[in-house]
Amino acid sequence: MRDRAAIVGVGYTPFTKDSGVSTLALALQAISAACADAGLTVADLDGVSTHRVGDSVQAAVVAQALGMHDPRFVSDQFGGGSMSHTTVAQAAMAVATGVAETVVCWRAINSRSEFRMGGTGRPPPDVVEFQYQVPYGYATPPQQFAVMARAYLERFGLGREALGQVAVRQRQSASTNERAVMRTPFTMDDYLGARWIVEPLCLLDCCLETDGAVALVVTSAERARDLPHVPALVSGAVWGGGHTLFSNHRGDLTTTAAADSSRRLWSMAGVGPDDVDVACLYDAFTPLVLVQLEDYGFCGKGEAAGFYADTSMPINPHGGHLSEGYVHGLNHVAAAVGALRAGAEVALSTGQPGYVAGSTSAVVLKADR
Amino acid sequence: MRDRAAIVGVGYTPFTKDSGVSTLALALQAISAACADAGLTVADLDGVSTHRVGDSVQAAVVAQALGMHDPRFVSDQFGGGSMSHTTVAQAAMAVATGVAETVVCWRAINSRSEFRMGGTGRPPPDVVEFQYQVPYGYATPPQQFAVMARAYLERFGLGREALGQVAVRQRQSASTNERAVMRTPFTMDDYLGARWIVEPLCLLDCCLETDGAVALVVTSAERARDLPHVPALVSGAVWGGGHTLFSNHRGDLTTTAAADSSRRLWSMAGVGPDDVDVACLYDAFTPLVLVQLEDYGFCGKGEAAGFYADTSMPINPHGGHLSEGYVHGLNHVAAAVGALRAGAEVALSTGQPGYVAGSTSAVVLKADR
Repeated sequence: MRDRAAIVGVGYTPFTKDSGVSTLALALQAISAACADAGLTVADLDGVSTHRVGDSVQAAVVAQALGMHDPRFVSDQFGGGSMSHTTVAQAAMAVATGVAETVVCWRAINSRSEFRMGGTGRPPPDVVEFQYQVPYGYATPPQQFAVMARAYLERFGLGREALGQVAVRQRQSASTNERAVMRTPFTMDDYLGARWIVEPLCLLDCCLETDGAVALVVTSAERARDLPHVPALVSGAVWGGGHTLFSNHRGDLTTTAAADSSRRLWSMAGVGPDDVDVACLYDAFTPLVLVQLEDYGFCGKGEAAGFYADTSMPINPHGGHLSEGYVHGLNHVAAAVGALRAGAEVALSTGQPGYVAGSTSAVVLKADR
Repeated sequence: MRDRAAIVGVGYTPFTKDSGVSTLALALQAISAACADAGLTVADLDGVSTHRVGDSVQAAVVAQALGMHDPRFVSDQFGGGSMSHTTVAQAAMAVATGVAETVVCWRAINSRSEFRMGGTGRPPPDVVEFQYQVPYGYATPPQQFAVMARAYLERFGLGREALGQVAVRQRQSASTNERAVMRTPFTMDDYLGARWIVEPLCLLDCCLETDGAVALVVTSAERARDLPHVPALVSGAVWGGGHTLFSNHRGDLTTTAAADSSRRLWSMAGVGPDDVDVACLYDAFTPLVLVQLEDYGFCGKGEAAGFYADTSMPINPHGGHLSEGYVHGLNHVAAAVGALRAGAEVALSTGQPGYVAGSTSAVVLKADR
């Protein structure tokens, strides 16, 4: 599959706290923008790919609304952030096998105004592990990831500043991103004084809940060369890798599924962490950024806080889910494509690593200049 | 993708009206049986693929329960019968690209005891078209397909016997199938005297609602040759093809999405309808069998009733959803594999053609002797 498909178009809706429209409308708006960005029209699309957790419009309905006469590929994956990069991987696989020529991937979400991932007022959609977790107080994502955060800080003797640096820097990055929902910088003192959500996670450790959509157009590497932007080749893609974080397979809460799948990812892409110019790392909560720097091989276990402080590699230059907005993984891929267009050669973008009912997914993209 | 992957194992649970166990248990039981049938163990699996409509356990949970240390492929597609054959198509694509080597596909369903597809007591899961259909009386599948049945019979001047022959013959086939939920043959007079469900569909036009699971092991054509059974090569696979039946794209209710996608299917498989030895056609309701015989090119539009009466080609030799049981498409693929092992050379198996929120999916299988 290496370098057979490329991302050639990126489209966004505005990121807001209340879109006022359906997820179908959001999806169509982002797809239309992505096609325009690619120099194509919706008539050029012959496949659709999304992921969702019962919170968004089905792929087949979007295909119909786009007026697709004979879609050749439909992928409508159940899954949250851990499956987010599967949308792109599926599209690349369809293009590589000739099943489809041009596939649009998207995630459309009203996660602030309609379906709050962090809410407790409704049962989680169809996630069987919850029956074992809720009695122990793991009802919402911050409760679940507070366990990871605590384990990480304690195991490596770190203070909250290790997490705070991620929150502070990502907001700084978002301050120049007009798309970002939150752009006002804050200091480490602000971070340390923010109210608790679930100790040791404070308000500024947690991602935003956002209304919005992101769409990406994927086509063959050959066709991509005739289109306006520098193609972002899909050099590597993994999904399903590794066990879930709270599984019966892993006793160590400071290592995620990415520790397994990243080896396959680098092998497939033919590059390694040292080759990466920009990393967009899934950041539902700050500790995930540190843990992934380790699990993707940028540094050793327990070294990420120091690595993060010292590295010149842009990490979530868009502000990530913490500050740009929470579009459940796909705004990370979009940011990676943007970085390649702006001059970077190799980008890593990752989904939620090891979480209930998920595993992880990730892509390595290369600029095809 | 042609002939790159093969189905090498088939596993069933009993088909019942009340399994008494979870869909997770059903899935694991069928998967275990499929691995044994293939001469493999669950440790040989590196990918998982299913479809569901919020009524069954997630793919990632099954992968975890199987003890998969590092799954390379997870496909957990939203969709009903129209997406059913996507499970196999996805697995074949993953094998063809080297993403995974051996993928298990399954459908696990407690559709009689737990989640009745024909029920009206709960909102349908996440199907946006329903808001436009329910006010007009399209709340359940029999109501929806009665429209197709009426249109088909009236357009071609046919009596109910055209549908009844399908019901009668499939029950006759099921009478020797120990797996079948309903095995007692009935006559055309029995059919014509059965109570209405929604005119012109009577009780015997409608599929069973069943508890059970079917699993299929897919691996590379090369590896398949070393395993005990005649491999069923995946020669062609389509999914996403065509518009939905009740879409704004198609005024004709007697032609389905398969009329579009079947052309691609035959082209991909390198065979045509005349080469088919056995056809397993999705039969939620009897009219679907007739319409698909036309849309897959076995005969011209309006000719299926006569074709069905005259043909010697086995059609749903397992009894189909009408008599064997309703495992939402995958028991059709399993029956096709069984026919190839028993001597047939080419088999067609199809998913729900053109239905709300779906399109269709199908595979052509060839015996690799």
